[in-house]
Amino acid sequence: MEVDERPVVGVIMGSDSDLPVMRQAVETLVQFGVPHEVTIASAHRSPDRTHLYAASAIERGLKVIICGAGWAAHLAGVVAASTILPVIGVPLSSSPLSGLDALLATVQMPSGVPVSTMAMNGARNAAILAIQILALSDNGLAEKLRALKTSLAEGIDEKNSGLGMLLGKA
Amino acid sequence: MEVDERPVVGVIMGSDSDLPVMRQAVETLVQFGVPHEVTIASAHRSPDRTHLYAASAIERGLKVIICGAGWAAHLAGVVAASTILPVIGVPLSSSPLSGLDALLATVQMPSGVPVSTMAMNGARNAAILAIQILALSDNGLAEKLRALKTSLAEGIDEKNSGLGMLLGKA
Amino acid sequence: MEVDERPVVGVIMGSDSDLPVMRQAVETLVQFGVPHEVTIASAHRSPDRTHLYAASAIERGLKVIICGAGWAAHLAGVVAASTILPVIGVPLSSSPLSGLDALLATVQMPSGVPVSTMAMNGARNAAILAIQILALSDNGLAEKLRALKTSLAEGIDEKNSGLGMLLGKA
Amino acid sequence: MEVDERPVVGVIMGSDSDLPVMRQAVETLVQFGVPHEVTIASAHRSPDRTHLYAASAIERGLKVIICGAGWAAHLAGVVAASTILPVIGVPLSSSPLSGLDALLATVQMPSGVPVSTMAMNGARNAAILAIQILALSDNGLAEKLRALKTSLAEGIDEKNSGLGMLLGKA
Amino acid sequence: MEVDERPVVGVIMGSDSDLPVMRQAVETLVQFGVPHEVTIASAHRSPDRTHLYAASAIERGLKVIICGAGWAAHLAGVVAASTILPVIGVPLSSSPLSGLDALLATVQMPSGVPVSTMAMNGARNAAILAIQILALSDNGLAEKLRALKTSLAEGIDEKNSGLGMLLGKA
Amino acid sequence: MEVDERPVVGVIMGSDSDLPVMRQAVETLVQFGVPHEVTIASAHRSPDRTHLYAASAIERGLKVIICGAGWAAHLAGVVAASTILPVIGVPLSSSPLSGLDALLATVQMPSGVPVSTMAMNGARNAAILAIQILALSDNGLAEKLRALKTSLAEGIDEKNSGLGMLLGKA
Amino acid sequence: MEVDERPVVGVIMGSDSDLPVMRQAVETLVQFGVPHEVTIASAHRSPDRTHLYAASAIERGLKVIICGAGWAAHLAGVVAASTILPVIGVPLSSSPLSGLDALLATVQMPSGVPVSTMAMNGARNAAILAIQILALSDNGLAEKLRALKTSLAEGIDEKNSGLGMLLGKA
Amino acid sequence: MEVDERPVVGVIMGSDSDLPVMRQAVETLVQFGVPHEVTIASAHRSPDRTHLYAASAIERGLKVIICGAGWAAHLAGVVAASTILPVIGVPLSSSPLSGLDALLATVQMPSGVPVSTMAMNGARNAAILAIQILALSDNGLAEKLRALKTSLAEGIDEKNSGLGMLLGKA
Repeated sequence: MEVDERPVVGVIMGSDSDLPVMRQAVETLVQFGVPHEVTIASAHRSPDRTHLYAASAIERGLKVIICGAGWAAHLAGVVAASTILPVIGVPLSSSPLSGLDALLATVQMPSGVPVSTMAMNGARNAAILAIQILALSDNGLAEKLRALKTSLAEGIDEKNSGLGMLLGKA
Repeated sequence: MEVDERPVVGVIMGSDSDLPVMRQAVETLVQFGVPHEVTIASAHRSPDRTHLYAASAIERGLKVIICGAGWAAHLAGVVAASTILPVIGVPLSSSPLSGLDALLATVQMPSGVPVSTMAMNGARNAAILAIQILALSDNGLAEKLRALKTSLAEGIDEKNSGLGMLLGKA
Repeated sequence: MEVDERPVVGVIMGSDSDLPVMRQAVETLVQFGVPHEVTIASAHRSPDRTHLYAASAIERGLKVIICGAGWAAHLAGVVAASTILPVIGVPLSSSPLSGLDALLATVQMPSGVPVSTMAMNGARNAAILAIQILALSDNGLAEKLRALKTSLAEGIDEKNSGLGMLLGKA
Repeated sequence: MEVDERPVVGVIMGSDSDLPVMRQAVETLVQFGVPHEVTIASAHRSPDRTHLYAASAIERGLKVIICGAGWAAHLAGVVAASTILPVIGVPLSSSPLSGLDALLATVQMPSGVPVSTMAMNGARNAAILAIQILALSDNGLAEKLRALKTSLAEGIDEKNSGLGMLLGKA
Repeated sequence: MEVDERPVVGVIMGSDSDLPVMRQAVETLVQFGVPHEVTIASAHRSPDRTHLYAASAIERGLKVIICGAGWAAHLAGVVAASTILPVIGVPLSSSPLSGLDALLATVQMPSGVPVSTMAMNGARNAAILAIQILALSDNGLAEKLRALKTSLAEGIDEKNSGLGMLLGKA
Repeated sequence: MEVDERPVVGVIMGSDSDLPVMRQAVETLVQFGVPHEVTIASAHRSPDRTHLYAASAIERGLKVIICGAGWAAHLAGVVAASTILPVIGVPLSSSPLSGLDALLATVQMPSGVPVSTMAMNGARNAAILAIQILALSDNGLAEKLRALKTSLAEGIDEKNSGLGMLLGKA
Repeated sequence: MEVDERPVVGVIMGSDSDLPVMRQAVETLVQFGVPHEVTIASAHRSPDRTHLYAASAIERGLKVIICGAGWAAHLAGVVAASTILPVIGVPLSSSPLSGLDALLATVQMPSGVPVSTMAMNGARNAAILAIQILALSDNGLAEKLRALKTSLAEGIDEKNSGLGMLLGKA
Repeated sequence: MEVDERPVVGVIMGSDSDLPVMRQAVETLVQFGVPHEVTIASAHRSPDRTHLYAASAIERGLKVIICGAGWAAHLAGVVAASTILPVIGVPLSSSPLSGLDALLATVQMPSGVPVSTMAMNGARNAAILAIQILALSDNGLAEKLRALKTSLAEGIDEKNSGLGMLLGKA
């Protein structure tokens, strides 16, 4: 199965407490059959592991890196500093400020070092964006993305069918 | 010259008043020799043009779309709704709220339809991210990105050389 | 019964998870006897359905459209882009930012394309505003609105009658 | 000329310092030929004038009331408390908080008393929404709104024609 | 007992749902033996009752008015518009924005019409401020306020005595 | 002249850079003939002066203290900690956050120690509130406050007279 | 045992309700064997105790003071006003604004009187910073800090070992 | 002169555009005769220089590191990740959000890796805090800090002397 191949997407999170959210990225990559790897690495508590991960990502075959972190979320920015791969940041809403800190710390990157930032807790979307990037040279993935788009619209159609009943239950 | 080839990056902005910021994306694409096109299209004032642009982007050869908008910045989200290409959003700080509205309206996308969001006014970074994506299958661009990374660090080195003089001027 | 007539108010929501709030708009329309229809349509997941809905609203007899959405709430803006009918937006507080994102994404519309924005989760008020608009040419509805205004004040009166007892229970 | 007829739209502002913004509502009503009146009335400094204005609006023939105010912008809410007419609020960005205070004070109305809130400084949109409401029973206005929508899209087209030259000037 | 005398402090709240917080103001006034009255009056749902209340406050013998409201909290400002008595506003944290809306709508009053604003849910402090005002011409109240100040400091002393035990329980 | 009498209102500000705003409080007190004193005292840079000021205020004859400060505005709270007089805080918009920091640091006082908080830069309103408090036992001041209220409303009337001309100038 | 020696770190909190968070500072100091003392002292309710504490801190042998407070958190600033010792502030997220008020009231200190501000509820980090300061002249503490840094990184390594299992449990 | 000795304080800033603010830290260190060094190093553009700087800081004799950065200000956090020295962060107000992003990105550090955060643009206070830390084992510096505290209070005294004249100029 494809998922056992050499990973092309790396999913990093700052702490294992981020797993309930970041797991959605992993599940989406599994669902699309994209080989990936999952790592815990903190910009602040394990800076060497984080730096090594980013600096070696290309030679290890990665094409996109997804980083999830909360609070002063430096992880995505620190990874982006050490690689030319596209880096996707997922700000987590785990702080008393409900993730506003993580959003700003992830997105407001200086000129020269972009981080592609998702919605708060948007781990599934991080995976979909990674797949959109990979799909530029993989027709199979592009086909699956088209199917996803169709299914999103069809899901709305189905919801509408059941709406009358839901309203009746008021 | 490469720039005259079929465009692979589309740069859209909601209004020509966004040009002073969005021009930085264009200039960066020129600098990296990436064929591109520039369009004004508003999610609200020209919805048909915007929808057609997004829906036809793949068949016209685009690989990445960069969208800049301010206030209730719906442009990137509306474009992302009609294509499976990676869509990069640049929130502009043109409103009284200094772009907090545009940032939230761009980044907080629902599951299934990601927008890759840059810093406020981060048009140059939008182009760099687009180039990072293209570089996954273009060694020439990857080489140029490595050179950019080196030049960023070297620029810091040079600034340090001149620092003594700057401090002396205090 | 009036409610079975051709709908004049359309209520749209981005997801069926918005129903617990948006149901209040529906119930208010029922209470005032205003013919209406309810639809799920997402600006991002079902853009075509949304566009068709807005573009055909006038010929289908609608006079006002109510849109409820959370997060990067583009629904009302996208609908307003495709119709000259009054569009009322209800920002939902479903995100970690408690609806600040939805409020700004709904209200900060560019010149030329207004969205009439309600309080967070203000679905009942959206229906009342729609009825205020319809009442400009419907004396029956105007009468009911006057009765509502009276009942609001009388409700306050009643609350005051019971206040002594409530305070005594301290 | 229509504008000399009995006013159907009332434009109120809390202070004459609000005129530079609120003038755009007036100019738009003039442009569409909608009879209107302009008044300064403060919820706090002239509460009686404000209350009388709102309470007598219907018998004086008004159909929509537009209220512009900054800071703790109570004007629209206070007017809405005393009329069943649709009330449109324009939060002005005149405070150190750039209008966030005015936006929240205008939009967060309690159940039963809606204020239709526009973007910060969105006086032109307030007029357009008023016209959309009037157009429900005025085909001439509806025609003009359709023309506005077309001209918005055509304006975008023209901007695109000139874009090459603008970019060349960089 | 003093509390049965003619009221000198009026406590108003926008809704009986505000009672759990505003009850603290009432209890503090009872505790200090200050004659008072409690009323529900909404700036938006019962504007006439509110206006009458404020306009007649002086002749009814009131000296200070305390107003508690949430969301677009106009109550204190509307009362202050119709009296020269000191008006104390208590912003309630009942909205999805946790009271930021109520705080700004209460405090950001225009020049000429002050509202003395308390912390969010600061109903007890509203009563204490009212008592501080009354104490300027009532030595008995001044004495009680001095006793309160002493007891606040003594309460801290007592907490410190028990601290060792609390820490030991860790 | 009354202003040369023993001061009853103390105006304190954290720095002489606050004078351009706080001068409005002084001018209003002069205008109403209220004896007052003006002092610079910082909660952080001159804590002893501040503490002594507050602790001796009553015996020196003060009845109300007005405190203006920006940034982490502790001045009003620190003064309120050492007196039972009513303390009015004016948050100044002098920081990069435009006074949001000063507002929250002034208003969010703990139970037992209220600060009567004005709008950002609301120095004139601080003086008016002080006068409202003094007027409870000074009929002359009460009369002047009634005159102020009348003049506010008349000012609005005058502005309306000139409005036609202002609009014509558009 | 070292902890019974003369205290070098003082931990103050505004209220015993802050103990569940501030206890983490105490536990960290115990863990590192740093002699310390714990006190409840409020800038507003016990200003004299607070002032005395700060003014006598040096002669009592303290080297660092840690202050935890919520809402309008003046404690750290007031302490810093009366000592030249390093003062560390911990903003607590106990208010409806989730600690944004406490953060701004703690950090935005004027020139001349710094407060070293930690993350919201960052009591453990306050202790670690205090230990970093003490470690500048205490090799034993420096060694323990190096061990902490190692253990943080090793903790991440261990989490990675268990990650496969965690993911499998999905 | 002391300043030529081996540096004990390192001042780092993310860009030479930060110099106008960060220069105040340098000038304060000069004023107190504290040997220091100034460096430009970016967490994102020169990650290796930054990491080396932090990792070698202790052996090079540094005792405190001051980091100034704006936007997604990761500099202080990244430095703190690689040293056990106290790290002081100065959030710069250079972004459209006026430094709210830099403040949150600097202060909201995870458990184990504190950053001592100053007010926005608080570079002078960063130097004073560094000196407070050094003064724990340097009586000369402690004496100078006491003199600073005295001069702050005396400065207030002087301002008060001139206040009458300033007010007269109104």
